[in-house]
Amino acid sequence: MLITLSVELGARSYPILIGSGLLAQRGVLDPRLRHRDVMVVTNETVAPIYLDPVKTLLAGSPVSTVILPDGEQHKTMATVNLVLDALVNARYGRDCVIVALGGGVVGDIAGFAAAIYQRGVDFIQVPTTLLAQVDSAVGGKTGVNHPGGKNLLGAFHQPICVLADTDTLRSLPDRELAAGLAEVVKYGLIADADFFAWLEDQAEVLLRRDPAALGHVIRRSCELKAEVVGEDEHERGRRALLNLGHTFGHAIELKAGYGEWLHGEAVAAGTCMAAEFSARVGTLDPTAVERIRQLFHRLQLPVSPPPVEPGQFLAAMGMDKKVVAGQIRLVLLDRIGSARITGDYAPHELADYLREQFVR
Amino acid sequence: MLITLSVELGARSYPILIGSGLLAQRGVLDPRLRHRDVMVVTNETVAPIYLDPVKTLLAGSPVSTVILPDGEQHKTMATVNLVLDALVNARYGRDCVIVALGGGVVGDIAGFAAAIYQRGVDFIQVPTTLLAQVDSAVGGKTGVNHPGGKNLLGAFHQPICVLADTDTLRSLPDRELAAGLAEVVKYGLIADADFFAWLEDQAEVLLRRDPAALGHVIRRSCELKAEVVGEDEHERGRRALLNLGHTFGHAIELKAGYGEWLHGEAVAAGTCMAAEFSARVGTLDPTAVERIRQLFHRLQLPVSPPPVEPGQFLAAMGMDKKVVAGQIRLVLLDRIGSARITGDYAPHELADYLREQFVR
Repeated sequence: MLITLSVELGARSYPILIGSGLLAQRGVLDPRLRHRDVMVVTNETVAPIYLDPVKTLLAGSPVSTVILPDGEQHKTMATVNLVLDALVNARYGRDCVIVALGGGVVGDIAGFAAAIYQRGVDFIQVPTTLLAQVDSAVGGKTGVNHPGGKNLLGAFHQPICVLADTDTLRSLPDRELAAGLAEVVKYGLIADADFFAWLEDQAEVLLRRDPAALGHVIRRSCELKAEVVGEDEHERGRRALLNLGHTFGHAIELKAGYGEWLHGEAVAAGTCMAAEFSARVGTLDPTAVERIRQLFHRLQLPVSPPPVEPGQFLAAMGMDKKVVAGQIRLVLLDRIGSARITGDYAPHELADYLREQFVR
Repeated sequence: MLITLSVELGARSYPILIGSGLLAQRGVLDPRLRHRDVMVVTNETVAPIYLDPVKTLLAGSPVSTVILPDGEQHKTMATVNLVLDALVNARYGRDCVIVALGGGVVGDIAGFAAAIYQRGVDFIQVPTTLLAQVDSAVGGKTGVNHPGGKNLLGAFHQPICVLADTDTLRSLPDRELAAGLAEVVKYGLIADADFFAWLEDQAEVLLRRDPAALGHVIRRSCELKAEVVGEDEHERGRRALLNLGHTFGHAIELKAGYGEWLHGEAVAAGTCMAAEFSARVGTLDPTAVERIRQLFHRLQLPVSPPPVEPGQFLAAMGMDKKVVAGQIRLVLLDRIGSARITGDYAPHELADYLREQFVR
């Protein structure tokens, strides 16, 4: 299986290659590298498994490596500086290429370093987690956390290629596989009711890592993501729908401490909260809320936030980037398969909901 | 006098307003601010003189302030973090506006913070030095130094407006006025022989700060810069000509220690070196070299680098961003008014030139 999709951004368009055994295909990246200096950025968990195959893949170019500590708690400016120092020490010029080998955290850090080294150098995403393959490796969002909030520092910087070898999912811990499926469910909820129903049908098959089912999940997710990014690269409009569950989720990550909850876990619980709040202030049917909670539950994902003082939770939501002129804008569901971005609800409704949420 | 120029970049086009008394014109920025949160970034030298007038100018918006230490030695990631922390602490959202009030260093830092806060927010340049008004405030280059090299970290991020009040030049120290004129001479050298001849004619008039002469200098420089940036925003081609003297100059700044030489002073000496090297390997007439040195000398600018070990100087040039595949690409002059970017010279020529340069 080799699927090639494209993110259409004019002169900055780039391919997403999805397939089994891609990392063993000598030469697959050569047309993009043309013997330029390469810096592979990876982490201490991924390096022992995939660094050697990737170095073989890059054999036509001079290669240096930076190995970062693993975990969301290291998604900081300090870690970006490690990558930047390595680039300076290697004396790499503007024509170098950074390869992000790992999950979403590695991709966000390496992509951000690529965005700001010498005002921007090329980078290639080689995602090795489901979450990165279905979501974070595509679309050019890069960045790191600040003690005051999630992803507060960063840049839009598109990769020149995404290479998703589905074989890498074999080494993925169960918990991370499930976390990736949270973002997959998201695509169904905002844009494709049939896909959501298919996920309901295939939940246990996916957890068993059936290759055909996972392949379909990655392909459909990337198709939807590529389409949205091609339309609205800088999130002035529709792209914000992809943040379903993320404003609640970012508050969970911030208050639980980065690294305690996986991002996808926080998104699962956050999406349940967004669904509940949608039912409270809008038109979403309570039976749909129940279907959503059920699917996350079957995927072994959390459906409720950890205990947090409601006022603190609200403040943490306010430091999320989706605030315009003081009112928190949320992605709410009208029904499964259809979402909208809105700040159009009475401010006390959100405070009331959070109070009830954390009392029960 | 009010001159309005435009940098043409499609949807991201923006005006350059040049004039006397602009900072006293209430309402001049209102259409761009629309009551959004504003963070003024300035430094301890500029704040006592211009912060109050600027706050009056911004009276329609909620305003916070960050006051940075003054000097190129503070153009670091650590200083950018001060600005980012202030933005987070003020809980500013994506719709905030950063105002850079000061010289090139303040503009580079504030602009870089604007580029990476929440993946990019709007910013306005209010340059108060000649160097910033004729060069650095226009064109969207932002960034900071790294111990390994000048401007190694940064982003292309265009302002939404440049507001150059020529009255601010009255408070500028003589040394900084001269440093700004170094970049003005550069425009003549790369693109406009008549302008260079006019500068030869007006050198002493400019040092006396004749308002009409300075007004002409700012206008002509911004016209040339806006044209080049509109053609080649990301420096894939012609924009690199604006780096005349900068590869030598950056090495001077790096080896002299940031803050010892003003950027414009390093550019003046660096441009003399570029001219000498152009004569050595190319077609530039030695009499043109002498005219260039004479003009910088009359403008009270250095025409030679400080003593540096030649090998170290060469290494410092190599960490400049204008390196492609190991060969240092330089902007060389064919004649006054015409330059080209080239790596087409024997590598030993540059080493030989530097050895002779630092022996004499």
